Amino acid sequence: MNFGTNADTICALSTASGMGAIAVVRVSGSKAIAIVNQIFSKDISNAESHTAHFGILKDNMQIIDEVLLNVFHVNRSFTGEETVEIGCHGSVFIQQAILQLLIKHGCRLAEAGEFTMRAYMNNRFDLAQAEAIADLIASRSAAAHRMALTQMRGGVSKQLAELRQQLIDFAALIELELDFSEEDVEFADRSRLTLLIAEIMQVIDKLRKSFHLGNAIKNGIPVAIVGAPNVGKSTLLNAFLNEEKAIVSEIPGTTRDFIEDEIIIKGVSYRFVDTAGLRETTDIVENLGIERSFKKAAEASVVLYLLDERNTNPTQTIAELQAFQASYITTQEFIVVVNKLDLTNKQFDFLAEFNPVFISAMSQINLDVLIDRIAAVSSQFSEQQNEVLISNVRHFEALNRAYEDLIRVQDGMNSGLPTDLIAMDIRQVIGHIGSITGAVDVEEVLGSIFSKFCIGK
Amino acid sequence: MNFGTNADTICALSTASGMGAIAVVRVSGSKAIAIVNQIFSKDISNAESHTAHFGILKDNMQIIDEVLLNVFHVNRSFTGEETVEIGCHGSVFIQQAILQLLIKHGCRLAEAGEFTMRAYMNNRFDLAQAEAIADLIASRSAAAHRMALTQMRGGVSKQLAELRQQLIDFAALIELELDFSEEDVEFADRSRLTLLIAEIMQVIDKLRKSFHLGNAIKNGIPVAIVGAPNVGKSTLLNAFLNEEKAIVSEIPGTTRDFIEDEIIIKGVSYRFVDTAGLRETTDIVENLGIERSFKKAAEASVVLYLLDERNTNPTQTIAELQAFQASYITTQEFIVVVNKLDLTNKQFDFLAEFNPVFISAMSQINLDVLIDRIAAVSSQFSEQQNEVLISNVRHFEALNRAYEDLIRVQDGMNSGLPTDLIAMDIRQVIGHIGSITGAVDVEEVLGSIFSKFCIGK
Repeated sequence: MNFGTNADTICALSTASGMGAIAVVRVSGSKAIAIVNQIFSKDISNAESHTAHFGILKDNMQIIDEVLLNVFHVNRSFTGEETVEIGCHGSVFIQQAILQLLIKHGCRLAEAGEFTMRAYMNNRFDLAQAEAIADLIASRSAAAHRMALTQMRGGVSKQLAELRQQLIDFAALIELELDFSEEDVEFADRSRLTLLIAEIMQVIDKLRKSFHLGNAIKNGIPVAIVGAPNVGKSTLLNAFLNEEKAIVSEIPGTTRDFIEDEIIIKGVSYRFVDTAGLRETTDIVENLGIERSFKKAAEASVVLYLLDERNTNPTQTIAELQAFQASYITTQEFIVVVNKLDLTNKQFDFLAEFNPVFISAMSQINLDVLIDRIAAVSSQFSEQQNEVLISNVRHFEALNRAYEDLIRVQDGMNSGLPTDLIAMDIRQVIGHIGSITGAVDVEEVLGSIFSKFCIGK
Repeated sequence: MNFGTNADTICALSTASGMGAIAVVRVSGSKAIAIVNQIFSKDISNAESHTAHFGILKDNMQIIDEVLLNVFHVNRSFTGEETVEIGCHGSVFIQQAILQLLIKHGCRLAEAGEFTMRAYMNNRFDLAQAEAIADLIASRSAAAHRMALTQMRGGVSKQLAELRQQLIDFAALIELELDFSEEDVEFADRSRLTLLIAEIMQVIDKLRKSFHLGNAIKNGIPVAIVGAPNVGKSTLLNAFLNEEKAIVSEIPGTTRDFIEDEIIIKGVSYRFVDTAGLRETTDIVENLGIERSFKKAAEASVVLYLLDERNTNPTQTIAELQAFQASYITTQEFIVVVNKLDLTNKQFDFLAEFNPVFISAMSQINLDVLIDRIAAVSSQFSEQQNEVLISNVRHFEALNRAYEDLIRVQDGMNSGLPTDLIAMDIRQVIGHIGSITGAVDVEEVLGSIFSKFCIGK
């Protein structure tokens, strides 16, 4: 991404691609009003900000469409630049014709994320908030939406800004000592610094640990279905997906794309890991299939262990369950499921200690009970959801690096490291924290962040 | 469609479905501002028309999104009703959440075309113009776009309104005579009526004949590729489609859906008839395939007759071509194409009278020459394109019925039919013409027209 081209006036389709009743083309830059004025039937050069204007877009004498323009002045638009939003009829032909017309009159087609990047460059919000906008647009569940919105409205940024400011103040004092190093003064209170470092480490540790949940909310809580071949793994997966399609209230015009391996329960997304494997038919080598599905379980947050009528030998079944738990279950929620309910449950009384759920995936019996058990996993998170969660890998890595540097600061202070070396480590921490909100000079990371946006944002 | 529910305030997603940078939810009806006011962070109850307002949409304490509202007052909106357009972030989740929130506060989800129907009911435009909006949104080529825009801006309506008014004036005079029937007066000048009828018949005949072109522009000019099996029909079709994909300048974010059997040449759409047949492999019975493809040729506007190296016998080839022309070609453009250019052309000198195009579909040689020959077909139409064209089957049928009734009026006048019967026929004509623009009471046809719209328009 070229940062030298902010002088350009840029344009792009900002609504979803494809045919709709209407579409919106966004024009932003110092010449936005002047360029649109050349092709619009009315004079908008003196239009007030936040006003709408109905008229005709023309390419010389050729009418392109009847449109509604929204005019926004500098510092009062999304980008912070002069902006015109063109609401046109939603045919793809018209969308293209308007973009071509704008380009002909001096606009440049916006790159992915360029509107948001300009907003960031104009200090409309910080980097973490800009990234949250992309998350917000991509959010598919209530929890992911809430998390992105909290971040967009400054949740993470605020917390980090406070920590960073305290560190900067201390760093300044320590660096001042260096200027007076021959006089052996101590402006920065070492015991207060020790306390501050410990406090900041606690906050950062909590934030980076929230990544596990934040990432799960963003990308779906991973669920693994394990069990012997033919125990009904793929039947259960399909039953879940059908359930979800039935639950979701379909509002025409906002059809949700169903993702093949995702279900949303009570506003939280669950993603079935290794769906391809689950769907595999029985013609693969059996032991290989089981082993592979077991390994996937280690990466999941919820593990459903399926049994069926073949597992009625108490000694063997319990031994297998315990062996599996010992090998693969650490912090995951472990749910034992007995499939093929048409058999009597009595013969599974020996499973009592595992509190199993009895279902029939085929006949869709007791699926609601199983779903409630899975949903209980996320309800334990729900109290945390009002807190700030980290969901962005880039932020997670920056926090990890900051934490490592803080350990070095701590060690340095304990071992009496020279002040100038401690100051350098503190500066590193400040840099890592600052990189999250873009408070430092991080031009090289901007390109990679904004190029992940869709065009038009 | 229920016409008794105009009191409802309706809402729908108006931009294309799916994820985008932004989306627009439209709210229209007497309570639009009041309803949105309940869920918006600012008071817009006194907002002026055509103003934009940035703020937060809330469901009680739960923030849904940061949005930009556009407010439109009665008689100044698309529908003519009080309207609020909500520009939100373009996630499907947010789109759904906002619609659900609006419904919770008293909106009803709009039916397909209901916004446009309300605009029609509020006399924002007539029925033909309303139908043109649907055509405009669906238009894929420059020619279809131009035609729909002409109609939306009142092209057809204006012409028909003039004719209809003249007939109404005459009908009124004739009906006046009936009131004075015992006195044997003649208010309506019969020779002027005869002239008027002839003139109107001429205009209507021209309009209904324009349907052939109008329909071709709207749905694509039908092109048939005929020829013996293995002569290269499907190779040629694929070559055309590849050519088109290469020609179309792709603007990111406005990706055009390519339709499997359509190419757009110089702003005009050409549609290959019976594409499925063309793509059939050679394992179908050969004669059946040829016969079927020949029959399709009769329905096309352009017929490409493919020959190859097997057709070097002058007598036989010319006999076959002439037999084909005699059986299937009436007004269609007939283009003889010799495929497989790798052979020398000399042996096809005997085809001179057919002015053949020599190509290689496989190596994509001379395709541009063939495309120019096909494009010449539409350029002969281009002069007509500034005229009003009929492209709507409903209009076409109404014009046909009007024309038939006019013939009856003419016959009646020639044969001295009683005035009251002639008056009835004239009223029929007025009714048919009026049904096009909705100038008469045609509630029963409205439902079928507007239900073809997408939701949100």
